[in-house]
Formats: sequence, C-alpha cells, structure tokens
Amino acid sequence: MPTHPHLTLTPIGTIRSPFREAAGTPIQPAFSDGAEGEVVIDDAYVAALDDLEGFDRVWLVYWLDRAGPFRSRVVPYRDTREHGLFATRSPARPNPIGLSVVRLLGREGCVLRVADLDVLDGTPLLDLKPYVPEFDAHPGARAGWFATTSSERRVADARFHAAGPGGAKEPER
Amino acid sequence: MPTHPHLTLTPIGTIRSPFREAAGTPIQPAFSDGAEGEVVIDDAYVAALDDLEGFDRVWLVYWLDRAGPFRSRVVPYRDTREHGLFATRSPARPNPIGLSVVRLLGREGCVLRVADLDVLDGTPLLDLKPYVPEFDAHPGARAGWFATTSSERRVADARFHAAGPGGAKEPER
Repeated sequence: MPTHPHLTLTPIGTIRSPFREAAGTPIQPAFSDGAEGEVVIDDAYVAALDDLEGFDRVWLVYWLDRAGPFRSRVVPYRDTREHGLFATRSPARPNPIGLSVVRLLGREGCVLRVADLDVLDGTPLLDLKPYVPEFDAHPGARAGWFATTSSERRVADARFHAAGPGGAKEPER
Repeated sequence: MPTHPHLTLTPIGTIRSPFREAAGTPIQPAFSDGAEGEVVIDDAYVAALDDLEGFDRVWLVYWLDRAGPFRSRVVPYRDTREHGLFATRSPARPNPIGLSVVRLLGREGCVLRVADLDVLDGTPLLDLKPYVPEFDAHPGARAGWFATTSSERRVADARFHAAGPGGAKEPER
C-alpha cells in the first residue's frame, strides 16, 4: 500500500459571504436565514462548471482557514456537554475541511450566486459537488446527541477562536 | 486576505473495503448492496471518536489516491453524455477529495464497522463527520442531469483509470 504522509491541496476559488468573523456567523446553512454570497471559481475551471445550473443545491468543500488547532473533545455550539470532535461539526479538526450544502441561485461564467451560506468571507474553496438526493439525502437517520440537545444556538461565538489575522473565528460545519 | 497557495493534509486513518480496483466497485454508497468494511482511525484520535455511535450514518471525507488527473469535462458513469466535472461526482477532480455517507454498524476503539461502502481498499481518510439530517438531508432538491439520464449503471469501469500502482481505478463520488 502506498503511504501518503502529506497530501497537498490547491484552492480552486474563494467564497464571498457577508460574514467577516465567526461571532454571529450561522453555524450551519440551515440557520443562515438564506444568507447570500458568491463562490468565485478560478477562470481555469470555467468549462468544468457546465451543467451545474441544473442542480438546486451544491456541496461546498472548503478549507477552514481560521479554525483553531485540533481538539479531541469539544463542547459544540449546539450542546452544553462535551463530545468527541468527530461526533461534532466543530471546525477544530485534524484536517480543517468544511462541508456545506448551499442553494444555487445562478451562475455567470465562473461566479456562482448562492444562498444559505454559513461560511466566513474569503474562505478558500477546494471542491464543488452537485447535491444528489439519491446519494446524499437520508432524512430518517438517527442523529445522536443532536436529537436530545436542549441548545437552540444558531450562530457561532468565540470558542473556536484562532489567533489568526483579524481574530476571525470559524462557525461549525 | 491571506493567500494559501498550497494546503497540507495528513491522513487520520485508512478505509478497508472489499474493493481492490475500481472496475466493479459501486459508484455510490446507495449502489453498494450494503458492502461492509472498516474505517481504521489512528490511535491518537480515540478520544475524538466518543459519542459517534449515536449516529446512524457518518460522512467519510477521503483522498482519492488512485484517481486520474483532472479533466474539465467527463462522461460520468451515470450518463452517456459529457458534463462539466463539477456537475458530476467523478474522481478526476482538481483536489481529489471524496465524500461518502456510510452506515455506522459499530465501533471498537479506533475501528469503525461500516456498511454501504463505495471506496477502494486502502483509501486514506481525511475527516469523519456525523450525518445530521437537519443539515444534510434535502430529499426534494432538483438533481440536474441525474433526473433525466437513462443510464442505470451502478458500478465503475476503467474510464477514470490512473496509471498508479496496480492500475486500480476510482469509482465516482
């Protein structure tokens, strides 16, 4: 088996959103009140975007560039108890890869207009995938502690603060 | 805005599946006939797995280590017509990040038993996220060309062949 000690990514574009810092940023697309923004893809990929307009929703796969360092256990925004990091959508992940499904409003060349954004402005985009209900929708799946939490929190605060430029923080995904 | 010309990932574990090469591998979890396997996480992350057992399904985020190079336009397994790469789940992506939702059957320490696998054996794992229907399930979303295709293909073939060790090929995700 080949070993892969380090793998390298190159951003394919940038996400433009109304959210400049995590405090107050929705923690998931479902809580964004439809927040709109743009996904600006590098010109080199224009042909690869053909036919994306046929999809209501797309997955954004992105780099959580303002997340704090990995923590094994966290108190996520949506609960008051601690959980293992991989049982949460907290950004403090070993590989800070974020995943959000957004609504696709339109496309002009390499710019996608999207809604339901929960991503910080300037976030590097790694991949785009069409949302396909046949593959991705499991409405009845049991959702562990999410099903019993009493927290109704919908926006981020300072708990996953990274000491980055501007001190911006990441919401959960 | 900080620039991120290259971002680095380190695998957190390995996916063990019955599929040694892409030809014949299911192209999505939904087509796997429940294929079972294991996700073996590095010991350093055992505490981060706490409470994952409460979830029926988990997202596997992984490195498509046997995918061929990026192509702007592809004829995906599920159609006979060409589409922009980002309107497909083909593995020939600029950043070869794969995404599959699998059923979680159980956990023993750092080993997860999973079903509905559509991933090649030995695939490096990058992240694990709980599947949360409130965030992830959009059963009514319009699915572009998937809705009109006449292809019923459920397993991969050689079209996204990489000239890698053993000549294994990647299914779509």
